[in-house]
Amino acid sequence: MQNIKDLFLDQESPAGRLVRAMAALGAATAGQLVKSTGIGRSTVSTLLSELRDAEIVIDVEVKSTGFGRPSQLLSLNPASGRCAGVLLGLGEIRIVICDLTHAVLSDVWLPIHRDYTPEEAADQIRDTLTRQCAALGQSIPDLLGVGLAISAPLSYDGKVMNGDVLPTWGGVDLAEIFSTRIDCPLHAENESHCGALAEMTWGAAIGEKDFVLYKFDLGVGGAIVRDGVVQRGFNGSAAEFGHIVLEPNGSLCRCGNRGCLTTFVGSYHLMKHAEEFSGHPVTIDQFIERAREGRLGYRRLIEDAAEKAGWGMGMTATILNPPLFIIVGKLATVGDAFVERLKSSFERHTLPPPDSGQHPRPRFVIGKFLANDDTVMGAVALVLHQHGRIAGHASGRLRGRSAA
Amino acid sequence: MQNIKDLFLDQESPAGRLVRAMAALGAATAGQLVKSTGIGRSTVSTLLSELRDAEIVIDVEVKSTGFGRPSQLLSLNPASGRCAGVLLGLGEIRIVICDLTHAVLSDVWLPIHRDYTPEEAADQIRDTLTRQCAALGQSIPDLLGVGLAISAPLSYDGKVMNGDVLPTWGGVDLAEIFSTRIDCPLHAENESHCGALAEMTWGAAIGEKDFVLYKFDLGVGGAIVRDGVVQRGFNGSAAEFGHIVLEPNGSLCRCGNRGCLTTFVGSYHLMKHAEEFSGHPVTIDQFIERAREGRLGYRRLIEDAAEKAGWGMGMTATILNPPLFIIVGKLATVGDAFVERLKSSFERHTLPPPDSGQHPRPRFVIGKFLANDDTVMGAVALVLHQHGRIAGHASGRLRGRSAA
Repeated sequence: MQNIKDLFLDQESPAGRLVRAMAALGAATAGQLVKSTGIGRSTVSTLLSELRDAEIVIDVEVKSTGFGRPSQLLSLNPASGRCAGVLLGLGEIRIVICDLTHAVLSDVWLPIHRDYTPEEAADQIRDTLTRQCAALGQSIPDLLGVGLAISAPLSYDGKVMNGDVLPTWGGVDLAEIFSTRIDCPLHAENESHCGALAEMTWGAAIGEKDFVLYKFDLGVGGAIVRDGVVQRGFNGSAAEFGHIVLEPNGSLCRCGNRGCLTTFVGSYHLMKHAEEFSGHPVTIDQFIERAREGRLGYRRLIEDAAEKAGWGMGMTATILNPPLFIIVGKLATVGDAFVERLKSSFERHTLPPPDSGQHPRPRFVIGKFLANDDTVMGAVALVLHQHGRIAGHASGRLRGRSAA
Repeated sequence: MQNIKDLFLDQESPAGRLVRAMAALGAATAGQLVKSTGIGRSTVSTLLSELRDAEIVIDVEVKSTGFGRPSQLLSLNPASGRCAGVLLGLGEIRIVICDLTHAVLSDVWLPIHRDYTPEEAADQIRDTLTRQCAALGQSIPDLLGVGLAISAPLSYDGKVMNGDVLPTWGGVDLAEIFSTRIDCPLHAENESHCGALAEMTWGAAIGEKDFVLYKFDLGVGGAIVRDGVVQRGFNGSAAEFGHIVLEPNGSLCRCGNRGCLTTFVGSYHLMKHAEEFSGHPVTIDQFIERAREGRLGYRRLIEDAAEKAGWGMGMTATILNPPLFIIVGKLATVGDAFVERLKSSFERHTLPPPDSGQHPRPRFVIGKFLANDDTVMGAVALVLHQHGRIAGHASGRLRGRSAA
């Protein structure tokens, strides 16, 4: 039996596929592993006992389904491997190390000046991650991988595209800058796509194969998941919902167009309006608290935002017709004043059901990751799901198209 | 060797897969068949010689690729099988019979009163198709299948959904009404989805696996094709581009919402405006001719329509990020006054490329089917591609999810 890192990076062998499936699922029964890998039941059974003997797989608990024989849940041995997730955000970097049961072992938040360069970020991450690993008795090359969540769309060849949050990073080749500093397989993805992976791994989308995620936070982002895979589109910029143009003559957006959804719903813009209204600066948390209390002005701002959000989601449904919308981001914590209003606006802005007969409507579910944890945990999920690989010594290819 | 119909309907055997691949491709080399079926080269070679001996497959011509040895193109024997396509349109039914090389053998157009019932349609189609088949020396059960193109979205279980053109058909179970009258495997799909299949089979999308089709005709319709498959979404109403809401306070649309794309771009609405402007009725062909000539008023109507069309397509690209748009329908025949204006509007209504670096933009291609042939030919393609099956004695299931 090979060690866990070799198995994890082995794209071909049944044992490698089994280990990666367990990494993605967290804990699973043998039956779930047969289903998700497509490997025969008897092979799975033999491999699992070999992996148990090698202390790579452990029994965790017995799952009762309510009928029939209860099933043994298995997971990877938490001691056998770790991975890291990194959020590269607006004036902040956050680094989390998780074990293979998805438990967080280390969580460091670093403030950084707003116009940090990719090189500064990579140096900071290397130094901090080295210390975090040392505290856990290991080093960076022992990690199974490091995931980077970037606040911008990413091209298939790992280049940063037009983005609001890291405007100086346009065209940067992430593999080039990070792989010389961080000696470990690297994965990178747009932060909203990471958010969808976090919801699929730990949140409201466990077991969901087809859904659309909308994130309402400082800006508006999202992801389209089809058959369990985050869709990146032709050049990596699919699901840029924040830049759906609602008003061609509206306010100028940072993307260069006018009247984008984010100019109506991004809380960056809502806070500016709140400041004009109240005459003094308002933080996002203050804004949300006042909106939730129904305070004059704030309530109206959130209702108007919900109206536009429902319009954007309605158009998305007219185009994609998804079975499920997952709503995340801080605005979702306002509650019904935002969410119920959004749903009624949605119904007015998407193809109505016929008068006769029932027509299944999409479900709306509030995600689990309403604060900003989705991005850094999604960066961990990039490694666990082997998604968005941009560089890595054991991958057989230095950089390539991610599983799109 | 079985007869062609048994082979065609045999979902499992390699010979069946080969026959269906040839039906879908029209003419192909052995190499293309290996690639599209995934069957090994030597098996394909053996099966092709058996099918040649049974006179199911014939050699058609030799294809020179410009280098290396020229390849033999093969096709199904045109005499060995036929299929029919039916358009159920606004006040019209059209029935086409094609052979397996995709050649049209019979084409009948029937005017019918606007509020025809599904039962009337099925009776008319049975009677006419019986006569068409008789003229070709056969009967309906000899056909490999009949495809129905419907001017409304269709649910996965073959029920007609909310539609403009056949408003009384809402909730109708097509299999129930047509399978008792037409003794042949039946396929049905929304007409715009049929249009995409026609472009993939005979038109501008041959060999294209990923594209978005927009049809600008009496109304606005479309299709999303991903990995060679027309996407139907959760309940069958994906790609209803005509009902993207551009102006929440705009004119009432027949769908029940306001300001849908079709209320700005559908030529049904453009003709109404032209009539108000000129003071007398204007046909769609007159409208297009005058717009093409740049006549006062008409030119402005087509430019304004192009502006809105580009906005809708821009939003579609922000959501889906497709590599290719195919534009079909009569409005595309206006030429640059429509298409160039549409493209410049598109650029103002989708996420712009960054200042630095090149960003691949989607291609725009005018389809081959600009008049209404796309729908009836797409209905033939439903059978050739084995798509949208709703009923059929040899299918092993009377009705089911189409290949979505």
